[in-house]
Amino acid sequence: MADSYTPVVQAFREKPGTRVTLKGWVRTRRDSKAGLSFIQLSDGSCFNTIQIVAPADLPEYESTVLKLTTGCAIAAVGTIVESQGKGQEVELQAESIELIGGVENPDTYPVPQKRHTFEYLREVAHLRPRTNTFGAVTRVRHCLSFAVHRFLHERGFYYIHTPIITASDCEGAGEMFRVSTLDPENPPRTEDGRVDFDKDFFGREAYLTVSGQLSVETYCCALSKVYTFGPTFRAENSNTSRHLAEFWMIEPEMAFCDLAGDADLAEEMLKDLCSTVLRERADDMAFFNQRIDKTIIETLEHIVNTPFVRITYT
Amino acid sequence: MADSYTPVVQAFREKPGTRVTLKGWVRTRRDSKAGLSFIQLSDGSCFNTIQIVAPADLPEYESTVLKLTTGCAIAAVGTIVESQGKGQEVELQAESIELIGGVENPDTYPVPQKRHTFEYLREVAHLRPRTNTFGAVTRVRHCLSFAVHRFLHERGFYYIHTPIITASDCEGAGEMFRVSTLDPENPPRTEDGRVDFDKDFFGREAYLTVSGQLSVETYCCALSKVYTFGPTFRAENSNTSRHLAEFWMIEPEMAFCDLAGDADLAEEMLKDLCSTVLRERADDMAFFNQRIDKTIIETLEHIVNTPFVRITYT
Repeated sequence: MADSYTPVVQAFREKPGTRVTLKGWVRTRRDSKAGLSFIQLSDGSCFNTIQIVAPADLPEYESTVLKLTTGCAIAAVGTIVESQGKGQEVELQAESIELIGGVENPDTYPVPQKRHTFEYLREVAHLRPRTNTFGAVTRVRHCLSFAVHRFLHERGFYYIHTPIITASDCEGAGEMFRVSTLDPENPPRTEDGRVDFDKDFFGREAYLTVSGQLSVETYCCALSKVYTFGPTFRAENSNTSRHLAEFWMIEPEMAFCDLAGDADLAEEMLKDLCSTVLRERADDMAFFNQRIDKTIIETLEHIVNTPFVRITYT
Repeated sequence: MADSYTPVVQAFREKPGTRVTLKGWVRTRRDSKAGLSFIQLSDGSCFNTIQIVAPADLPEYESTVLKLTTGCAIAAVGTIVESQGKGQEVELQAESIELIGGVENPDTYPVPQKRHTFEYLREVAHLRPRTNTFGAVTRVRHCLSFAVHRFLHERGFYYIHTPIITASDCEGAGEMFRVSTLDPENPPRTEDGRVDFDKDFFGREAYLTVSGQLSVETYCCALSKVYTFGPTFRAENSNTSRHLAEFWMIEPEMAFCDLAGDADLAEEMLKDLCSTVLRERADDMAFFNQRIDKTIIETLEHIVNTPFVRITYT
C-alpha cells in the first residue's frame, strides 16, 4: 500500500510512544560497544536523516543489521522515542529491520557518505539525488515551482501550455535547435537540390521554442491574466555557469496593465517566493547557508523585508 | 496598476451599490429603443459575460458607445446593480465607457459572435481564445494542471523537471524527433562519409524525450515520492484525434510501493481531479455539457462517486 510507512518528515512530528514503520536508504551505520547499532536513515522527504537504534538482541542483528552499508534500502518497524543523543529530538527504537535492497559491493558504491565534487557527481547522475546537495536542490526547486503556480493561481492567472515545437521565432534566428525526422544522412531533396522540408514531419521547417511569449499573448488578449511555465531552448554556443541550452521559464502576461503594475507584481511575486522557500524549506536552506553560500538566508530575508525602489530608465 | 479594475468573476460577487471599473472585450452591443445600450463584456476570468447598461445621456454615448463592436477592448466605470433581465443577477450601470482598443473593420472581424468550426478557428489561432469553447478549455486545463500539482504536493511528492533534450530512448527508437544545430544542407562528415554528430551541439546525436520515466526513477530512489509533469514527444506518423506529436504527461513514481498502492493513488487522484473541475469550473463544465457532450457532468460525477473495482490481469 502507498501509505504503509511513515515518511521521515512525519516521523519527526510523532509523539514518543508512537509505533511506526520507516522505509528509506541507509546513510551510515555505527556499532556501539554497548551492543547496539545506530543507523542514519534518509527517505528524501526532508533534509534530515532519522536515527534508528537497533539493539543486538534483534533476531536479524547478525544477519541483516551488521551487514547494512550506505545505500541499502531497508524497512524498520519500531517506536518513536526521545533521543538521548544531541542534534535530534526523536529517534526510532527498532523492533525489526528488513533489508529491501542491498548494495552489491559496498567498497565501490559510487556515493559513499563524504563530500563529492559536482563534476564527479555528473558521472553518477543516477545516484546523485541521494546526496545532501541534490536532495536539497530538488526539494527547493519543487517548493519554488509549486509556489509559482500557487501565487499566480490565487491571483486569477491561467496557466497556458504554449507549443514547444514551433515554426515561429520570437527573438531572432540562428540560435534555435532544429527538430526533424528526416534522415540526416540522405534527406529528400527538391529539384534544385535543397533539403525538401515539405517531406519533414510537420511539412515545413520546425524548431524548439525560444519563448512562449508570442503564443501566450494571444491568450492574454482573451483571458486577461495568463502565464507560461515550461521548458525553453537556446542553441547559443555559450558555455557559462549561467547559460543553459534548456531551461524552464515563467512568463506572466497581463492585459490592461502598465509598467508600474507589472513592477508591483514582480516585487510581490519575488517576495512571496523567497518567503515561501525560507518558511517551507528551512531545513534545506540552513544546509545551503552552511555549505554553499553563508549569506543566502540573509540575502533572501533582505529581499522579503526591503521595499523595492523604482528608478526611471532615462 | 495591476489591480486597478475588478475582474468580471469578482464583479458577480459584489454587493449592489458597489462602484467598480471593469475592463475587457465586447462580445455584443444591443441598442434599445428606450435610449440605452446593453453591452456584453468578457474578460475571460470566468465563462459568463457581464451586462453593462450604457444610458444615452453618457457624454461619450454617440462617439464611443454606439460604435462598439465585437472584439473592442473597453474600460467601464459604474455601479453594480441588480439585473432587471433574466439569466444574471447583477449588471453594471455605467457612468463612463472608454475605448481602449478598437476593431479596424468590424465587417471582417474574424470571430464574430456566432458558432465557428474548430477547423476554421485553426486559421485564426490568435483570436480563438476569445471564443466560448477555447476560453472554457483553457480555464479547465489550468484548473486540472493546478489540481495535479496540489494533489501531489499535499501528499509529499516532489516535482522533477526531467530533461526534454536527451540522448536516451525509453521506448524504442524510430519514433523520436532529432534535435540538431548542424546545417541540414551540408552537414559535417566523418572520413567514411557519414554525418559527424561529434560536431553537433551536444557532441552526439540528441532527441526529444518520449518519457521522463528513466530520469525520474533515479530521483524516486532517493526522494521516495516524485513526479514529472512536462512535455513529451512522439514522432509517430499517426493522424488521429487521440494522438499528438507533443503532449504534457504526468508520471508519479513511488518507492516502497506495490501495485495495490499504485492503483489506490490512481483512483484517489482521478476522483480528486474530477471533483475539483466539477466544483471549481462549474461554469465551463455546464457549457460543455450543453454544447459539446451532454453526458460529461454525469460521467465525471459517476467517476467521483463509484468505487473502482480491481480486476486481476490473468
